[in-house]
Amino acid sequence: MPETNRRILLARRPKGAPVPEDFRFEEAPLPELAEGEVLVRHRFLSLDPYQRGRMDDARSYAKPVEIGGVMECQAVGQVAASRDARFKDGDWVLGGFGWQTHSARPGKALIAIDPQDAAPSTALGVLGMPGLTAWVGLKDIGEPKQGETLVVSAASGAVGQVVGQLGKIAGCRVVGIAGGARKCAYLMDELGFDAAVDHKGDLGAQLDAACPGGVDVYWENVGGAVQAAVFPRFNNFGRMVMCGMIAQYNTAAGADAVGAAPGPNLGPVVRKRLRIQGFIVGDTGWKRYAEFRAELLGHIAAGRLRYREDIVQGLDAAPDAFIGLLQGRNFGKLLVALD
Amino acid sequence: MPETNRRILLARRPKGAPVPEDFRFEEAPLPELAEGEVLVRHRFLSLDPYQRGRMDDARSYAKPVEIGGVMECQAVGQVAASRDARFKDGDWVLGGFGWQTHSARPGKALIAIDPQDAAPSTALGVLGMPGLTAWVGLKDIGEPKQGETLVVSAASGAVGQVVGQLGKIAGCRVVGIAGGARKCAYLMDELGFDAAVDHKGDLGAQLDAACPGGVDVYWENVGGAVQAAVFPRFNNFGRMVMCGMIAQYNTAAGADAVGAAPGPNLGPVVRKRLRIQGFIVGDTGWKRYAEFRAELLGHIAAGRLRYREDIVQGLDAAPDAFIGLLQGRNFGKLLVALD
Repeated sequence: MPETNRRILLARRPKGAPVPEDFRFEEAPLPELAEGEVLVRHRFLSLDPYQRGRMDDARSYAKPVEIGGVMECQAVGQVAASRDARFKDGDWVLGGFGWQTHSARPGKALIAIDPQDAAPSTALGVLGMPGLTAWVGLKDIGEPKQGETLVVSAASGAVGQVVGQLGKIAGCRVVGIAGGARKCAYLMDELGFDAAVDHKGDLGAQLDAACPGGVDVYWENVGGAVQAAVFPRFNNFGRMVMCGMIAQYNTAAGADAVGAAPGPNLGPVVRKRLRIQGFIVGDTGWKRYAEFRAELLGHIAAGRLRYREDIVQGLDAAPDAFIGLLQGRNFGKLLVALD
Repeated sequence: MPETNRRILLARRPKGAPVPEDFRFEEAPLPELAEGEVLVRHRFLSLDPYQRGRMDDARSYAKPVEIGGVMECQAVGQVAASRDARFKDGDWVLGGFGWQTHSARPGKALIAIDPQDAAPSTALGVLGMPGLTAWVGLKDIGEPKQGETLVVSAASGAVGQVVGQLGKIAGCRVVGIAGGARKCAYLMDELGFDAAVDHKGDLGAQLDAACPGGVDVYWENVGGAVQAAVFPRFNNFGRMVMCGMIAQYNTAAGADAVGAAPGPNLGPVVRKRLRIQGFIVGDTGWKRYAEFRAELLGHIAAGRLRYREDIVQGLDAAPDAFIGLLQGRNFGKLLVALD
C-alpha cells in the first residue's frame, strides 16, 4: 500500500477558543514531484501561538489560512525523494510545511539542517523561530544590562525560556512568570532564574517580593492580568518588549483588539520614560540567523542555555495539543512528532 | 519707595483643577546679593503644563513645590544688580526663576541670552524648553520621514506648533489637533499644516478625512479621547511620542495614574510593531541646546518656522492664565509679561 499524505485542514473559523470541530483530517495521495522539487517526510511539526491568529479572517501581518486550507506551521523533516541535485534521501530540512505528514517543495525553498550541530527538533525551538524571536527582541528592544531586573511572562514556553536565560547571560536578575508550581520549580532549578512568579497566585505580592528593585525590562507574551500587574512596577527608562498577548488571542474581536479589554493608562510612560515596542521576528530576524545560531550554539555548548521540549506523538494529537497551548497546558516548546 | 519682590506661592495642593485659592501672593524685600550673585528683574515668566505636576505631592521625575514655596517656572529677565563680573546691568538672562518679579541667583546658574539673535521671550518658547522638547522628541523618537503622516495634539500650543512645523520641514503630511475653529485656521493658514482636526468635533471622522493613509507618527500632548481616537489609526511601524497627557493632569490620582481611565489595548502594538515612548526634555535636551538653537534659528530666518505667543500682562494674571492653560484657553506659547 503506497503511503499517503495525511493533513489537517481549517474546517471553519473558531469562535473564541478553538475546538476540535474547527479542524478536519484528510488523506491525499503523495504529491508528484516536478523538476527541482523535493518530497519531505515530516518528523516534527511546530505548534506556536501565532497560528491562532492565522485561523481568523482578520487583518494581520500575515494572510489567514483559507477555510479548507492546510493549517500553517514550520516543520522539520527528511527528504524522501528529490528532483533537486542539492538534496538526497535522508537529508534534514526545515520549512513552512504545515500540519501534514508530507510535502513537496522546490529545493530552493528548503533550509538544510545539519543534525551533527544539534538535534533537528531544535530548529523549531531554541535554534529556530522561538529562539530567534527571543534573541532579536532582547537585542533590539529589551537591551538588558548588567544588574537590571528582567521579567518574562510565559517563561517556561518556547520563547520565554530563551529570553530568561539570555537575560541571565547578560547579567540581569531574571524573574519568570509561569502557571503552576511545577513550571516555577523548573525555572528556578533547571534554568537558574532568580525568582519565579506563579500567575495562578497573587501576582502583585509575588512581583513585589521577586522584584525589590522594580522592573527594567518586561517581556510580554501574555497581556491581561499579568500585564496589568507588571506595568505599574516599571522603573524609569523601562522597556516593554511586546512579543505577544496570548491571553486575548481567543477573546479579542480581531487583530485590532476592537472590543478587547483596555490596557494601562499611559501617563507613566511619560514620567518614567518607558518604551513599549512590538516586533515580528520575520521582519529582520532571518537575515541575522547565522549570527544568532552561532551565538546560541556557543551558549548551549558551554552549558549556559538549556531547553525543554514538550513532544506529543502523531498527527492526530495536534489539534488538542494546540488547544492546550493556548491555555498554557504545554510545558516547554510544543512539538508534534511524526513517525 | 524701594522696589519689592512680589511672588506667588503654592498655598495648598489642588484637588483636581487648580483654583485661585490654591495660590497666594506675597511681597518680600529684594534679596541681598552675596558675592558672585546677580539680581534679576524678571520680564517674562513661562507658564507650562508640567507645572501642574509640581503642585502635587506625588512621586514624579522632579520634586514637588512645597506648600508655601514659590511656584516654579523658567523666566527671562534683565540684570538689575550684579556681583558677578560676567554680568552687568541690563543683560538678558534665562533661569528657573519662579513665579515672582525678582530673584537673586549665582551668576554661574544663569544662561546669558543675546537679544540680537531673537526676541528674549523666545528663550521660553520656540528657542527654549518647549521648542527643545519638540526637537528632541522628534529626533529621538518620532523620526519623521518624507511622505509620512505626522499627527500632533495640542498643535497650536508651545510644543505642538514647533512639532508640526519641524514635521513639515521633514517632508511629512502634518495634521494638527486643536480646540476650536480659530486655532484650526491658524494651523492651516499661518503654519502651513496639511489638515486640522477640531477636538470639539467628531474626532474619528475628521481623522479619517485628514489621514487617508493612516498615522505614522503621533505626538501625544493630550491623552484621553484624543489618544483613543488616534491610536487605532496607526500604520505599521508607527511611533507614538509621549510628551504629556494634559487631559488627565487635573484628574489622575497622582503621577502613576492610579485610578485614571485605562488606555488602549496593546494588542496592536505587536501586530503593527508600534513604538510608544516617553521622554523628558531635561534628560538629554540641554546638552544638545547649541545644535538645536542653531538649527531653529536657521529655520526662523528662512521663514520656515513661525511661532505664536499668548502674553498676559502682570504677575496678578498668572494664576488665572495657568488655570486656563490646563483647559486649552491659551493660543500659542503662554507667557506672563512683567514691567
